Amino acid sequence: MYKKTNRRDFLKTAVIGNVAALMSGELFSAPIVNQKIRLGFIGTGLRGQWVLSMVAKYPEVKIPAICDIDESMAASALKILKDAGKTEPRVYKNGDEDFRHMVANEDLDGVYIATPWEWHHPMAIAAMKNGKHVGTEVPAALTVKDCWDLVKTSENTGFHCMIMENVCYRRDVMAVLNMVRQGLFGELLHCQGGYQHDLRNVKFNDGNQPYGGGVEFGVKGYSESKWRTQHSVDRNGDLYPTHGLGPINTMLNINRGNRMVHLTSTATQSRGLHNYIKKKGGADHPNAKVNFKLGDIVTTVIKCANGQTIVLSHDTNSPRPYSLNFRVQGTKGLWMVDNQSIYLEGRSPHEHRWESDEMYLKQYDHPLWKRFQDQAAGSGHGGMDFFIVRAFVESLKRSISPPLDVYDAASMSVVSPLSEKSIRLGSTAVKIPDFTWGRWQTNKPIFGLDDDL
Amino acid sequence: MYKKTNRRDFLKTAVIGNVAALMSGELFSAPIVNQKIRLGFIGTGLRGQWVLSMVAKYPEVKIPAICDIDESMAASALKILKDAGKTEPRVYKNGDEDFRHMVANEDLDGVYIATPWEWHHPMAIAAMKNGKHVGTEVPAALTVKDCWDLVKTSENTGFHCMIMENVCYRRDVMAVLNMVRQGLFGELLHCQGGYQHDLRNVKFNDGNQPYGGGVEFGVKGYSESKWRTQHSVDRNGDLYPTHGLGPINTMLNINRGNRMVHLTSTATQSRGLHNYIKKKGGADHPNAKVNFKLGDIVTTVIKCANGQTIVLSHDTNSPRPYSLNFRVQGTKGLWMVDNQSIYLEGRSPHEHRWESDEMYLKQYDHPLWKRFQDQAAGSGHGGMDFFIVRAFVESLKRSISPPLDVYDAASMSVVSPLSEKSIRLGSTAVKIPDFTWGRWQTNKPIFGLDDDL
Repeated sequence: MYKKTNRRDFLKTAVIGNVAALMSGELFSAPIVNQKIRLGFIGTGLRGQWVLSMVAKYPEVKIPAICDIDESMAASALKILKDAGKTEPRVYKNGDEDFRHMVANEDLDGVYIATPWEWHHPMAIAAMKNGKHVGTEVPAALTVKDCWDLVKTSENTGFHCMIMENVCYRRDVMAVLNMVRQGLFGELLHCQGGYQHDLRNVKFNDGNQPYGGGVEFGVKGYSESKWRTQHSVDRNGDLYPTHGLGPINTMLNINRGNRMVHLTSTATQSRGLHNYIKKKGGADHPNAKVNFKLGDIVTTVIKCANGQTIVLSHDTNSPRPYSLNFRVQGTKGLWMVDNQSIYLEGRSPHEHRWESDEMYLKQYDHPLWKRFQDQAAGSGHGGMDFFIVRAFVESLKRSISPPLDVYDAASMSVVSPLSEKSIRLGSTAVKIPDFTWGRWQTNKPIFGLDDDL
Repeated sequence: MYKKTNRRDFLKTAVIGNVAALMSGELFSAPIVNQKIRLGFIGTGLRGQWVLSMVAKYPEVKIPAICDIDESMAASALKILKDAGKTEPRVYKNGDEDFRHMVANEDLDGVYIATPWEWHHPMAIAAMKNGKHVGTEVPAALTVKDCWDLVKTSENTGFHCMIMENVCYRRDVMAVLNMVRQGLFGELLHCQGGYQHDLRNVKFNDGNQPYGGGVEFGVKGYSESKWRTQHSVDRNGDLYPTHGLGPINTMLNINRGNRMVHLTSTATQSRGLHNYIKKKGGADHPNAKVNFKLGDIVTTVIKCANGQTIVLSHDTNSPRPYSLNFRVQGTKGLWMVDNQSIYLEGRSPHEHRWESDEMYLKQYDHPLWKRFQDQAAGSGHGGMDFFIVRAFVESLKRSISPPLDVYDAASMSVVSPLSEKSIRLGSTAVKIPDFTWGRWQTNKPIFGLDDDL
């Protein structure tokens, strides 16, 4: 945890003009409107290309530069822009560090980052230090120190760092957020989320296609298996907490009236990845000798300052149906995603009996979804991507703080390294830093307040 | 954790004839058959009466004595026995300690205990020390020391202490146990269980009826509210872990090839009981001033020696549908009770899609259920009670160790005090004692092996 002196040190070095705003909690609210924006892309793999194709639909967005060291991925990105009628951007592709030239040389309002996890932090830092706002894919950083670094760099430079956690905009969880805010669940007590997704054919492929067909990863892999799988070799913890945690954070007002105080993590034995290699590649395949550190299922329990608990599951190595494991429970009732059911005392027709959540999700459909449902319908991941991309673009256009900001980026992402630490120490409880320097006590919610952002 | 010297101390004081059997792990397997048995009942409240009515159906069981300090409850018990054509038993009712006279004076094979939780341990100890086998309702003890005391007393006296955890016999979980043993889930990774049961109208009533109608408890309450509610005032932890844990223990071979190594617990704020009193009794009711220590939802995560994790929920103060929260997950698939669904890789018709568990529960119906379904059908709690009562009676008749023994009693019950300790220490990880003195490594499973017990 940071000592008060650190805050003083920070304030001393902060951009002088920002100090008053900082003290009043209104940093990043400058009312400058910038109708046309210039956006750079770092990372044009499959995810980057997808977001690029969505951004390319905005006539007010110029994309002067992209950066990727994989020529074929960069070529695909150029085609997307060409097909969308955009001017051909400069391409930065000369090695791992060429992104630094892009953020230093280009005149950009913002930079979107969709690179391997370990690059998000250095790229975000470089962008902010060069006067660019950032939108980064999840997680934003991999260590406690790097999470702090994002926060301090954002505060010192005055540039935003948005975490592109699209699940915050999923239609069902936004409807439930709406219900939470209207008090249907009473005072929240307990939430669950997680990433329960069989990624075995993402972590392994044949080196030519993104999903399956072989048991290669690393240099012999393709797309995510090139880099993502190595995290399962090296790390045991909740490697990917933000999809489950993001929506819960908005419901529990984390960093804005509430905060996460401590966590414990416990991992099962590691079986799934090794078994998959043996089954698909044979016991003699060289990868059958790889020792995967990641337990197949990691359970993390978080305690909040206002009393609530959050249970997160990380479950990516085993055969199972996809589920983000959502459960939202308060003093008046609860919603569970796995049985698509809800129970509200005094409202549900039968005492102590689940009812389908269908009518509630319709009735409490979030204003944002009501407004944009036609545009969102065709976009990725059930429409979520439309909203997260729009929020990033709109925040840049208006020069306002994004609805998922650097404090969200840090507090969601820090769960991974702390979870690793807890497991390493036999599930011991680990304190979660307060990245808001105490301002969580007076901060107000910013996400999904109306039909705007 | 116990030091080795304790074991040596224990062996020195153990009944000499039992030592060889103990060392070979075969204590309690003496092949003495006792066709007629005499059973004493301590506690003839609502639960005791129910079990009494089931036991009274066994012509080979005599009930020479019952014990209850509540005259009306004892009278109801006498009526049950009379209606069943049993000889009228002696009644021990002279104060809290009169049970000691019963176990000292009566010639009994076994004693069944269904009293307030805090009495289970002293009554079980007294019974065993007076040469009676024990069947105790859950939990068997409330402190780590008392859990050890049960184990040591059972080992020293050679008398059994069965934990009457009826959910181990629930039809669906026994079918799933059957599936686990047939390898359908592969190697188990992660299990969930819990006690999610809105007990507000059990914890409070009007002093005349067992369920609701008022907000009284303690001396002004009736039935369970007389004593159970005080635990919610005094304690913060998983107060009632065994319904969720029992079935998981049999699936994970706890104490028999596996053991629980450590746990963490995290509790939410406490709201439900206070809110209920205010709503039903008004803000001026004296009980509205009571400070309940129990968090509304307590989440406990247990780590096992073979790597698996167990998540337990304790959730008794809030409006919600009843659910024991079961989930059983292995390397090949998983079952979840809340959506009544299963997914097994290579067997479920659609990849990564749940299917109904209905056909599986039928196909893998446990041999015990197949054999006794007609008799079980009319008994309590969906038939579970038939099996747990039969297991107790049959174990006594055959003078064999029961299928849920003193090690199960101790290891399931100890979760409560350890959970309290973990919460008290900020969710720190707490070690779980090995009540088998290392014998878990060679012990073989004993529960539900066939259609016998």
